[in-house]
Amino acid sequence: TFIRGMQTVTLIPGDGIGPEISSSVMKIFEASKAPIQWEERNVTAIQGPGGKWMIPPDAKESMDRNKIGLKGPLKTPIAAGHPSMNLLLRKTFDLYANVRPCVSIEGYKTPYTDVDLVTIRENTEGEYSGIEHVIVDGVVQSIKLITEQASQRIADYAFEYARNNQRASVTAVHKANIMRMSDGLFLRKCREAAEKHKDVKFTEMYLDTVCLNMVQDPTQFDVLVMPNLYGDILSDLCAGLIGGLGVTPSGNIGANGVAIFESVHGTAPDIAGKDMANPTALLLSAVMMLRHMGLHGHAKKIETACFDTIRDKKVLTKDLGGNSKCSEFTNAICQRVQDME
Amino acid sequence: TFIRGMQTVTLIPGDGIGPEISSSVMKIFEASKAPIQWEERNVTAIQGPGGKWMIPPDAKESMDRNKIGLKGPLKTPIAAGHPSMNLLLRKTFDLYANVRPCVSIEGYKTPYTDVDLVTIRENTEGEYSGIEHVIVDGVVQSIKLITEQASQRIADYAFEYARNNQRASVTAVHKANIMRMSDGLFLRKCREAAEKHKDVKFTEMYLDTVCLNMVQDPTQFDVLVMPNLYGDILSDLCAGLIGGLGVTPSGNIGANGVAIFESVHGTAPDIAGKDMANPTALLLSAVMMLRHMGLHGHAKKIETACFDTIRDKKVLTKDLGGNSKCSEFTNAICQRVQDME
Ligand SMILES: CC(C)[C@H](C(=O)O)[C@@H](O)C(=O)O
Ligand SMILES: CC(C)[C@H](C(=O)O)[C@@H](O)C(=O)O
Repeated sequence: TFIRGMQTVTLIPGDGIGPEISSSVMKIFEASKAPIQWEERNVTAIQGPGGKWMIPPDAKESMDRNKIGLKGPLKTPIAAGHPSMNLLLRKTFDLYANVRPCVSIEGYKTPYTDVDLVTIRENTEGEYSGIEHVIVDGVVQSIKLITEQASQRIADYAFEYARNNQRASVTAVHKANIMRMSDGLFLRKCREAAEKHKDVKFTEMYLDTVCLNMVQDPTQFDVLVMPNLYGDILSDLCAGLIGGLGVTPSGNIGANGVAIFESVHGTAPDIAGKDMANPTALLLSAVMMLRHMGLHGHAKKIETACFDTIRDKKVLTKDLGGNSKCSEFTNAICQRVQDME
Repeated sequence: TFIRGMQTVTLIPGDGIGPEISSSVMKIFEASKAPIQWEERNVTAIQGPGGKWMIPPDAKESMDRNKIGLKGPLKTPIAAGHPSMNLLLRKTFDLYANVRPCVSIEGYKTPYTDVDLVTIRENTEGEYSGIEHVIVDGVVQSIKLITEQASQRIADYAFEYARNNQRASVTAVHKANIMRMSDGLFLRKCREAAEKHKDVKFTEMYLDTVCLNMVQDPTQFDVLVMPNLYGDILSDLCAGLIGGLGVTPSGNIGANGVAIFESVHGTAPDIAGKDMANPTALLLSAVMMLRHMGLHGHAKKIETACFDTIRDKKVLTKDLGGNSKCSEFTNAICQRVQDME
């Protein structure tokens, strides 16, 4: 049912703690009167004609229509034999840019302060091509596929992201000293994009050097762009610097406005259903989503309420160092949102 | 010239600050009366028959004879068109295990304390196979090669290292959820090695998860074993936790006792020849070498003198936070070594 002035978003609550933290986000959005209506869809692996793994048609159809999705954690048992649903979603909607802002959270202590960077990961190819062979018994090869098109697309995206978000520099992360052709191609496309965006400073750096410098002084980094696997690693490393996956938002961006925002932590089956989960990562992902939709006022309000609640330290979930329930933490944020009216 | 009771080691001083820090190590060894005589060899890239890149024959011959090498930094300009000399050395002598202990240094402040772990990196294949192709214009593939033989060898090495060094656990680091066949094979070999070494605890963990947990609490890790590229990344990350490449030793271990120990920092051309370099990484690599040769007494003495000098904070090179020269720092360590007699 279409409501005037409301935008519909596909909500994939996910498994384990997914439904709880999704409810939490919905409650906070309601308190903020954010003009969003949710269309809930389950995503489980199904097999189409020829045994091809796909996401359920009603989820696909919903995303095709709404273009924007918010997603909780999905369980991905290796044993099940199907690919990770997270990866399948990224693939199905060609969500080529994985964007993870890592910003220090005031009041949540880690060994680092003033971290403020964004990892931008190529999300469709590279080491994640899924092409592997047994050459002879005991000899296996995995193929890392780098294309000019995907490299150019992500490089351009990184510079445009920097420009649109008032960020001063982009660092290309690579191992072109070792993978001269593949990372070399990626790097070349970054250099070309840099030529087109002279207002943004460009540097290039080896992945190992970035990791080393990152743990020594993360404040030297701004926007980082890199191939798929390097992004997988570096985004988790950076999340660790600010408190882990429980507080780190993530967005998967495709062409023509299509995007899925997701918390990248696990399903935490041990605490599922116990009102103990921390909804922060999903909430901050939803805040990214609001900004993506141009709803900056609501984004700011909800983000502020969340950070203020954490800084205040009175009502926190266990993993954040408190002993409140998910519902209490959620209510505390709702209260602050309403007080801002 | 063979001297009774002395063992000969091939010394590759290297480029940039290499000769200075090599002299420093030689001086300290002399002060300790370590029964080592040095056979100096230069290593530059030369082209053999058919254009094949190789290390100079007199360096190869020296290493073949002595089996043990100590090596300073080598410059590896991508533009020169030849492979990294570091890699060529590892390949020439089939140095299949890259071992980097990362231990917090008392008195040298970083955001972490009590780090005490060892990364063991497969050093011969994986993403470093050097096999790359252009498939069609704009589409490049790099091949990651994983073999049963190399995986088994490094897995066994890791468990034997743990046992011989009184370490309680080995963690296999992988992305077998993505590279199911290649990392899957590596992981299988680790599991098999674990079966053979039931006295050592075995765990397995995704690379991204290791990176995240590493920056949150490195004290949870002990021995880590992994394919080539993951080791490149993780060893640098871990070096960052304890103060960087200037203080981190490294050993490349092959079969039948063959090994090259090296500092893995750069050649620092900007300070070369200015008596400003920090010899710690090369010195601690030389200490690893002494242990490898069974010279535990000298190893302990030199290591203690080095750590005491750093803890004391009176005579430190610039990068360590002091304002002493390389020669002054070296003399301070020599003095302590002699005082221990
Ligand atoms: C779930 C897993 C397949 C995924 C990945 O490896 O990309 C995850 O680690 C991530 O970063 O979103
Ligand atoms: C010099 C370079 C080729 C090398 C590597 O990538 O392995 C270095 O980073 C290392 O870790 O020893």
